[in-house]
Amino acid sequence: MTRQLGIGLISVGWMGRAHSRAYRNVHERFPDLGARPRLVVAADVAESGRSAAVEELGYERATADWREVIADPEVDAVSICAPNFLHREMAIAAAEAGKPFWIEKPMGISLEESTQIADAAAAAGVVTAVGFSYRHAPIIARARELVRSGRIGRVTNVRVGFVADYSADAEAPLTWRYARARAGSGVLGDLLSHGFHLAEHVVGEIAELVADQSIFIAERPIVTGDAVGHAAQAGTERGTVENEDYSAIIAHFAGGAVGVFESSRVSTGSRSEYTLEVHGTLGTLRWDFTRMNELEIATRDDEFYGFSTVLAGPADGEFSRFQPGPGIPMGFDDLKTIEASHFLRSVVTGEQDGPSVADGRRAAQLVDAAERSAASRGWVAAS
Amino acid sequence: MTRQLGIGLISVGWMGRAHSRAYRNVHERFPDLGARPRLVVAADVAESGRSAAVEELGYERATADWREVIADPEVDAVSICAPNFLHREMAIAAAEAGKPFWIEKPMGISLEESTQIADAAAAAGVVTAVGFSYRHAPIIARARELVRSGRIGRVTNVRVGFVADYSADAEAPLTWRYARARAGSGVLGDLLSHGFHLAEHVVGEIAELVADQSIFIAERPIVTGDAVGHAAQAGTERGTVENEDYSAIIAHFAGGAVGVFESSRVSTGSRSEYTLEVHGTLGTLRWDFTRMNELEIATRDDEFYGFSTVLAGPADGEFSRFQPGPGIPMGFDDLKTIEASHFLRSVVTGEQDGPSVADGRRAAQLVDAAERSAASRGWVAAS
Amino acid sequence: MTRQLGIGLISVGWMGRAHSRAYRNVHERFPDLGARPRLVVAADVAESGRSAAVEELGYERATADWREVIADPEVDAVSICAPNFLHREMAIAAAEAGKPFWIEKPMGISLEESTQIADAAAAAGVVTAVGFSYRHAPIIARARELVRSGRIGRVTNVRVGFVADYSADAEAPLTWRYARARAGSGVLGDLLSHGFHLAEHVVGEIAELVADQSIFIAERPIVTGDAVGHAAQAGTERGTVENEDYSAIIAHFAGGAVGVFESSRVSTGSRSEYTLEVHGTLGTLRWDFTRMNELEIATRDDEFYGFSTVLAGPADGEFSRFQPGPGIPMGFDDLKTIEASHFLRSVVTGEQDGPSVADGRRAAQLVDAAERSAASRGWVAAS
Amino acid sequence: MTRQLGIGLISVGWMGRAHSRAYRNVHERFPDLGARPRLVVAADVAESGRSAAVEELGYERATADWREVIADPEVDAVSICAPNFLHREMAIAAAEAGKPFWIEKPMGISLEESTQIADAAAAAGVVTAVGFSYRHAPIIARARELVRSGRIGRVTNVRVGFVADYSADAEAPLTWRYARARAGSGVLGDLLSHGFHLAEHVVGEIAELVADQSIFIAERPIVTGDAVGHAAQAGTERGTVENEDYSAIIAHFAGGAVGVFESSRVSTGSRSEYTLEVHGTLGTLRWDFTRMNELEIATRDDEFYGFSTVLAGPADGEFSRFQPGPGIPMGFDDLKTIEASHFLRSVVTGEQDGPSVADGRRAAQLVDAAERSAASRGWVAAS
Repeated sequence: MTRQLGIGLISVGWMGRAHSRAYRNVHERFPDLGARPRLVVAADVAESGRSAAVEELGYERATADWREVIADPEVDAVSICAPNFLHREMAIAAAEAGKPFWIEKPMGISLEESTQIADAAAAAGVVTAVGFSYRHAPIIARARELVRSGRIGRVTNVRVGFVADYSADAEAPLTWRYARARAGSGVLGDLLSHGFHLAEHVVGEIAELVADQSIFIAERPIVTGDAVGHAAQAGTERGTVENEDYSAIIAHFAGGAVGVFESSRVSTGSRSEYTLEVHGTLGTLRWDFTRMNELEIATRDDEFYGFSTVLAGPADGEFSRFQPGPGIPMGFDDLKTIEASHFLRSVVTGEQDGPSVADGRRAAQLVDAAERSAASRGWVAAS
Repeated sequence: MTRQLGIGLISVGWMGRAHSRAYRNVHERFPDLGARPRLVVAADVAESGRSAAVEELGYERATADWREVIADPEVDAVSICAPNFLHREMAIAAAEAGKPFWIEKPMGISLEESTQIADAAAAAGVVTAVGFSYRHAPIIARARELVRSGRIGRVTNVRVGFVADYSADAEAPLTWRYARARAGSGVLGDLLSHGFHLAEHVVGEIAELVADQSIFIAERPIVTGDAVGHAAQAGTERGTVENEDYSAIIAHFAGGAVGVFESSRVSTGSRSEYTLEVHGTLGTLRWDFTRMNELEIATRDDEFYGFSTVLAGPADGEFSRFQPGPGIPMGFDDLKTIEASHFLRSVVTGEQDGPSVADGRRAAQLVDAAERSAASRGWVAAS
Repeated sequence: MTRQLGIGLISVGWMGRAHSRAYRNVHERFPDLGARPRLVVAADVAESGRSAAVEELGYERATADWREVIADPEVDAVSICAPNFLHREMAIAAAEAGKPFWIEKPMGISLEESTQIADAAAAAGVVTAVGFSYRHAPIIARARELVRSGRIGRVTNVRVGFVADYSADAEAPLTWRYARARAGSGVLGDLLSHGFHLAEHVVGEIAELVADQSIFIAERPIVTGDAVGHAAQAGTERGTVENEDYSAIIAHFAGGAVGVFESSRVSTGSRSEYTLEVHGTLGTLRWDFTRMNELEIATRDDEFYGFSTVLAGPADGEFSRFQPGPGIPMGFDDLKTIEASHFLRSVVTGEQDGPSVADGRRAAQLVDAAERSAASRGWVAAS
Repeated sequence: MTRQLGIGLISVGWMGRAHSRAYRNVHERFPDLGARPRLVVAADVAESGRSAAVEELGYERATADWREVIADPEVDAVSICAPNFLHREMAIAAAEAGKPFWIEKPMGISLEESTQIADAAAAAGVVTAVGFSYRHAPIIARARELVRSGRIGRVTNVRVGFVADYSADAEAPLTWRYARARAGSGVLGDLLSHGFHLAEHVVGEIAELVADQSIFIAERPIVTGDAVGHAAQAGTERGTVENEDYSAIIAHFAGGAVGVFESSRVSTGSRSEYTLEVHGTLGTLRWDFTRMNELEIATRDDEFYGFSTVLAGPADGEFSRFQPGPGIPMGFDDLKTIEASHFLRSVVTGEQDGPSVADGRRAAQLVDAAERSAASRGWVAAS
């Protein structure tokens, strides 16, 4: 039997909309889930966000006060999509109210905050989800299987690149993302936390690392108006960028493999180049989010030795719920629908399914280790 | 003000589901449309289709009789997603009932059928939509603009490939797709009708052509059970494939350009390789559906002369309604949402917006010309 | 035992130099050949060409009169690298003198001329070579083997593109290449003759074809000074381009496959994009001269189904004579060295090895068929 | 006036042949050099090498004793292509004899040896060359110019990968390459020394680094017969691999950029994947040796923002001496010809041109720094 689940949303931005779409579509893609979301209430500080929630996203009501969302007795599960510096308070409140929540990453703006969130969820015994979207690409399921089954042999080394250009324009304004107090770390938290999780999801645990980080654009124009996403009005005065534009890391996995991680937010030409390479003694895998339905595979025993470009198809992960055949592209929002299915499955069954706040905390731990290593200029344990 | 539009669906297969999803999502993507679909009734001959329509897709009710969908007074617009050989009767019935309809392609199984459909819609004065999905890729909007604005000069030649492997397995069973009486043409109608439309949409009208066609796999195992999509049970007995696996065409555009069209359903390695190349005196464009968010562009005046891989972004077509930045992939179902927006805009305004049954007929005319040319082994007019 | 072979060269341009380099290097690459070229005499109408031949290329002497080259008793074999419109007279003279010759393509500026050359060689019983360089790429040897052995099944269709941009600039001057009387056909002879030969070499004989051709840039500035290669001085007056910039062809191979051929000399962004695709019932091959050491291969039975990028290596053709391992690029001049080895093997053994003037005539026959088809707007036999 | 230069070669393997070919071809490519090599004498311990030198490569005589090559009064310049562990003695002997020499890399098997070689050359005042071939790719000249001119802004980060599979087979025998006493370091010296030099050539000096290294295949079959290149006979007994299969490095350039270096000899699917990426505040460049004639370029101000694939052409480095137009591939041996031209120019003018043993020593210094860092698990100065 299908159970209705009351959904509450906090903050109606890109991610708030993406969560809402995922809720709207998840039942049809996953009818076996036994859950049908009902969009009950959305909170946003802006009137425009509240009216969009009701008019466009289909929430029954809206409020300016996020606490009302959590308190609402019709709300069974909460999506927390507010700016990162507000996450902790909201997540802890949700946990304390016994409400399962789906939170975007980075969960908190520090390891401490992320730990507090994870601890609160654990103490309350609520299931959770965290927005590690990329692992849900169906071809990543294939990659993981090829790695875990030994098809590419013993993993020797791993390369992860989370490289983007969203801050490549030196005249892009100094939004909250560049402020320690608001964002915590820079590209480490915003992008490479995804890379850490993806690598551990596919390969296994990271044991220690040495990191380096840089601010390539030291000053940016100070914002004079409201900021929306990366855009904002700015004047001629400049302020200081407080967190890293770029980080490079060498890591040791517990299983013996070496990892090279690189992340940038200022890389010209690279829009959302989120890549994973896994090298094993018998084969190599390469993936790039920009072409998220493709996996390059080379194996030593191939009659036609070289990299094959393999397209995601019905046998890979949840692909068959979305398209009937390989070559028909799934898109990013489809990954959020898969993410929603894990969250709702957790809510319905009471058993954690998919990445939780513990995984979010783990990624924060790796970000923290990278920052500590960069500061100390030495290897640090990743735990 | 937003108007509710009652939707009726005929046939709950891949496309029926895709239309339903598009209806479900279109309001949020296009809140300015002034239309909010209400899924009223779906018809399917199979009980499983009917229950899926209600349980999964969210239709209020279901019926085994497609005529009830058209007759339903709460239905303002109809989606016709049945097998092609049923299209004509359904479309004419919808037109005669004064109901706007969105029909999948190929519209009919012959030029005659497609003409009857187009004529019926014209006579009834109903707006329509036809499932030419690929043109809705946002980067195709950019391609068209670059062509139409003269940015790549005078168009000299065009290459279109609609190449797939869905029938590449010689043991794939002899479904209705291989039967003249059920499917009409083979790959010409199923795939290259898309290619013709895309080329005319971007470049302009085709004036004449010479075509060649082949059946590469002459016999296939006869179906012994039910067929679903391309899959079916089959025995050891073989029957004859009656329509073309492959076609190659040279065409002259009215504007002076030459076109080379190629389509195959049996091409190993090519999953959904639907490509468009436009060559002009000042530049060249290349697109491939498999990487539908990318456009390769070369221009003579480029400081770094060569093909640039440009990613779709907010400035391209309807991209900004889907994702905030370039490099975040849109998927195929997003194209269907854009398609729905055109249909509903037509319904709301009464003015045809986007491709109509007249365009469907035009594609059928080109398919027919190709068949006539292949039969006569000579150039034929494409009108 | 290694025999010294006296070499005479006619015309010291790009190809004359390429032949000379090939002669200089062939013994070391092919020590088993039993032939060691000795560069005896070179003819060029220009003093600069003659001095380059002696000073740079290492010929013992030079002359302004090409007849002296052929007549020279120390010359055992002749390279004919003059402009195409001079080929016939030279080739026939060489044949009549009983001198084996290596001639660049297109052999003559018409089928008639090419036939006369082939007939003269046959009558004289001299071995020959013709400059179909691309087939000598080692990975093409692999491609041919995969096709001929049935590894990709029965060949169904073939795509050949010889697409370049050397005339893409509408201001490029009206050299002899654009004049019927000097060049004969345009892109058909200059580029697509290569494509025809390559396709027949890999797949088999073409039986009939239908062709279309266009002049996209109708007028060009008239040359006022000397022309060297594609470069020349030109004024503001314009003259008429007399041969085709572009041609598209559909062909039937005798073995049942369909071919699509396309060639352009005005395609922005495509430098030397000479491609061959062979589709069979069990697999597909794709090659591009620009990346001449790579072959893309897809086979139906591949565990990781998709196109593999395979690099030429020691097992492919003559690769092992050039580089020790895959991934170390061979270059174009290496192909000319292989070409020289075939020519010299023919000379030494008296048995024709590699492509001869009969193959050159065959390509001219296909060019002629294409021109006849384009003129008659119908299918013509390719023999 | 062109001067004849007597050449002596030590060791007739892949590189000895490559040097010899380069000498044979350099005058024609670089007639302005004023030098015409004369192949005087070659040394090899094997009779087969000596006879090949005379019969195939064209040396006037051969000897088993490399000291005779250096002592020969007709030898003006020496190529040292023996296994690395013999380099020091030979190079010092050549320097002491006042003979300019061209030596393959890694120059010595340790920083100490490389320093002794560089010091001997400096003390003797002889010009030298070292086999850093990749920098001679013409498109690398373009890359360097784009970097040095500021066209891509201030360099922020650099990625270098020298990734190969020549040892990927775990059953490949334990040749001298895996022994510390014979080879020194593993992939660091063999491959990444190239990467260090290329990065410093294009970007500038490296100041400090932190490195990690691994042996992924700990044991290999012990060689029972003679080894030639990477091939050898081996039995079932296994011995220990003594030097690294893989290394990852983070570096700081003196100019402020960060570098990530990675090198592997056991990476399945990567044949000779030698890559350089340079990221600047205004643009990004990407190069891969496997496609050595291509450069990918993205600049912030591009109308069609994205990576352009630019082909090497006559304007790039020494390209015009090899091929007339872009898209006609140069090969690896052409790079050795360019390398020879630098060496001979140095010999003729007495002024060092191109990379010298000082550069070889510098690369050894970086290899040494990487080894020290890996051992100490910390950052070390790269000087």
